[in-house]
Amino acid sequence: MYETCNVDFEKLFNPENIAFIGASNNPWKWGFIILANIIRGDFQGKIYPINPNYKELHGLECYPSLSAINDNVDLAVITVPAKKVSAVIDECIEKGVNNTIVITSDFSETGEEGARLEREISVKARSAGMGLVGPNTMGILNSYGNLNILMSPVYSMKGHVSIVSQSGNVGTQIMSECINNGVGVSKFISSGNEANIKCEDYIRYLGSDEQTEVIVLYIESLKDGKKFLDICREINMSKPIIFFKSGKTRGGMAAAASHTGAMAGSIDVYRSVFKQYGIIEAETTDEIIDLVCGFVSFPVPEGNRVGIVTLGGGWGVITADECEIQGLKLPELSREVYGKFDAILPGYWSKQNPVDMVAVASIDIHLKCLEAMVAWDEVDAVIGLAGGAVSNFLKIFLDDGLDRKIGLRQEEVAGFIDILNKEAVSYKKSLGELMRKYNKPILHVEIGNSVSISRNMKDFNYTFYRSPERAVRVLKKMYLFKKMKDRIRNK
Amino acid sequence: MYETCNVDFEKLFNPENIAFIGASNNPWKWGFIILANIIRGDFQGKIYPINPNYKELHGLECYPSLSAINDNVDLAVITVPAKKVSAVIDECIEKGVNNTIVITSDFSETGEEGARLEREISVKARSAGMGLVGPNTMGILNSYGNLNILMSPVYSMKGHVSIVSQSGNVGTQIMSECINNGVGVSKFISSGNEANIKCEDYIRYLGSDEQTEVIVLYIESLKDGKKFLDICREINMSKPIIFFKSGKTRGGMAAAASHTGAMAGSIDVYRSVFKQYGIIEAETTDEIIDLVCGFVSFPVPEGNRVGIVTLGGGWGVITADECEIQGLKLPELSREVYGKFDAILPGYWSKQNPVDMVAVASIDIHLKCLEAMVAWDEVDAVIGLAGGAVSNFLKIFLDDGLDRKIGLRQEEVAGFIDILNKEAVSYKKSLGELMRKYNKPILHVEIGNSVSISRNMKDFNYTFYRSPERAVRVLKKMYLFKKMKDRIRNK
Repeated sequence: MYETCNVDFEKLFNPENIAFIGASNNPWKWGFIILANIIRGDFQGKIYPINPNYKELHGLECYPSLSAINDNVDLAVITVPAKKVSAVIDECIEKGVNNTIVITSDFSETGEEGARLEREISVKARSAGMGLVGPNTMGILNSYGNLNILMSPVYSMKGHVSIVSQSGNVGTQIMSECINNGVGVSKFISSGNEANIKCEDYIRYLGSDEQTEVIVLYIESLKDGKKFLDICREINMSKPIIFFKSGKTRGGMAAAASHTGAMAGSIDVYRSVFKQYGIIEAETTDEIIDLVCGFVSFPVPEGNRVGIVTLGGGWGVITADECEIQGLKLPELSREVYGKFDAILPGYWSKQNPVDMVAVASIDIHLKCLEAMVAWDEVDAVIGLAGGAVSNFLKIFLDDGLDRKIGLRQEEVAGFIDILNKEAVSYKKSLGELMRKYNKPILHVEIGNSVSISRNMKDFNYTFYRSPERAVRVLKKMYLFKKMKDRIRNK
Repeated sequence: MYETCNVDFEKLFNPENIAFIGASNNPWKWGFIILANIIRGDFQGKIYPINPNYKELHGLECYPSLSAINDNVDLAVITVPAKKVSAVIDECIEKGVNNTIVITSDFSETGEEGARLEREISVKARSAGMGLVGPNTMGILNSYGNLNILMSPVYSMKGHVSIVSQSGNVGTQIMSECINNGVGVSKFISSGNEANIKCEDYIRYLGSDEQTEVIVLYIESLKDGKKFLDICREINMSKPIIFFKSGKTRGGMAAAASHTGAMAGSIDVYRSVFKQYGIIEAETTDEIIDLVCGFVSFPVPEGNRVGIVTLGGGWGVITADECEIQGLKLPELSREVYGKFDAILPGYWSKQNPVDMVAVASIDIHLKCLEAMVAWDEVDAVIGLAGGAVSNFLKIFLDDGLDRKIGLRQEEVAGFIDILNKEAVSYKKSLGELMRKYNKPILHVEIGNSVSISRNMKDFNYTFYRSPERAVRVLKKMYLFKKMKDRIRNK
């Protein structure tokens, strides 16, 4: 059995140079696109495009072959057609290349001839002790090394989520959504057909990677389930692992077979084992992102008692429903905390948890309510709905000269906007501050204006949710993670 | 029993003038905000602000009282405190006002004194035959009449969805999401405490409104369930009704009681009756928008057979899984349609449904595959994943001078961008054209770049979905709607 500990993962993610075999000047070819992505990603080491037909490519000196490079090569990226890959692997071995990434597809996923070619390159690389990512991979990324060897034009800011995906498309699109939500990705790996390096090998490496705090897995099938589980179980104790299993049904498994060429395992087996180990299942692709944002942005709750603070009653009702459905508790307000809300809010407030702030248009009051709730020692987490939205609300009236239309004076308008801007900034800052002060998660839900809010949130290293149901489900899974970890620790 | 047929809904949604009792020049008050919204919404009739303290407000002549207006008044909007509302209702009756909207809260939702005040105004308005919306309403909208009597700054383009909501916040935020997704709202009603006009009365009106094709309901509780159901059952046969019930659990019901002051009914009762009538339940708030977009954008499928066309294999697997989970069928490719795909795609395509286009970067090929699938008479609906994404894909390289960095010539870049722009436009146009040609729904799923795509889609009167699971669930519910309607018709 191949021992993947031979692979030098540090050098894979932090190469000093990259040779690119199959480089092209045709913008419709991967040999163009991936090379452009490496350049645009601002890789700081040397790049050696290899193609005997050109002297220069993408503004770089182009080499006729690997052997023509007068340097040791750390990493070779390969995009030539499948039938030519085996010969290129020979050249890489001869050159003493440390690691290769075989982007090329048409291997085991397409039939017996492809499988034969895959075995051939697998054995060659293994015997030579050379790392081989893929084949049929969409590439890797390391935001800490300005390394973007990807088919998709995705460039992540630095961050602490790492992604291992058996589908390159699904993986890069999960990564894009992380970035859209202000969450930076540390390492990304499209593991492809996993001829040599399996997803569990990447996970083991990520377990030791200082820049990785949360791990996301997209899995279609496993070749060595026991090893995979042993690794995940250990790493999950310090770094939450979020997995999404596809090929859950007969139809899905059949589709997966033609996709990565392996049979998918039963979802029930995965679920029962993963649950036992506290490894978190994302049940939908939306939930993958929701959970990543949750684990990156919020402390894990100590228990399942939730306080709800809402600007509108309806959202409070929806959130209370979902908490009950998901097994979270809404404690009744204690006399003391009731008194606090009664002092802050108008007489017609809801008098119970969820606390309905009855549309009071004051961010200052929203913050006071939020703090009264999070400070209360009978709640483990707080969900805030639509608070802080007043700024968006009133500012819109002042667009496009409504000030003149409704006869407000210019100085009044300017003063008003100033107050609103300051309040909006202070609200967002305060969410994070309150969370750190009380070390409890505060999940903030917005809806209807998601785009502008999401952009603002990026500046505050915070996550908002698009619906209360999604926030509640994240909280529930974070709570289950905590409970399972405690149970395993106390065994 | 009050007969709501006395209410002149046409005049409510298309008043010739509006009196505003409680108008204010303080931007923190609803008397300012709602009045500003009416003005910003570009209402074409006369507006009469009423407040004895001002001669002018928002650039309009201000009146000391209703009686000072030398005109018949169609609609009076009331924002004065609860204790003063009853006297204002007297004035409205004396003036012969047709309809009133009581924005003011602190009525039956807050206790016995509020309930007494509510009964008082209810009886007065009813006896006088004057329509009364609310109290505790966030207002109404009619995009066809430039009528925006709302607490929130939401201005919809014209469209064919109408919304009746027992929560003003939830309702306006559903409306915002419709607008964000390019779907215009015809009528919006925040029904408030429903002292006189009940949600079923609005629904009956919407049934006869020519500009309404799809109806959305947010319900916490019903006072006359039988009447409500009779009306919904009839209207649902010609206009799909999407309902979201909140107060599903004990905790949710308790929250609802303090919100609209009524007891919520059991969700099981609602579900079983609605299902029997083919009325569609949105199970989450996200699903409300998904369903609205589906019913507005796509023809209802004739059956449950789905063809999947995907640019990346992983998304195909996820979609196949969800179809099976939701009871939709993926027919096996017939020999004829197999041959079509085999002629279009490279040899290593998936050879089955889902059709994996194996990352071929050609929009022309994506469209050919889509048409081969939708034209096939063994599918009732098509789900397309990530097709047409090539343009986004390659264009990004050409941002910010990458052309110079990678040594492309300017004229090459310009030609390239031109091709991509044309292809992107043609792809989006073609989605709608194929749908109309074959009269089958084609649901398009994007992920990772939702914002830019959503904006583009608005120009093409089309909806995209953010995840395959959400697209599949919409398709399933559209199919169930069709099945139930057929069953009822054939009885």
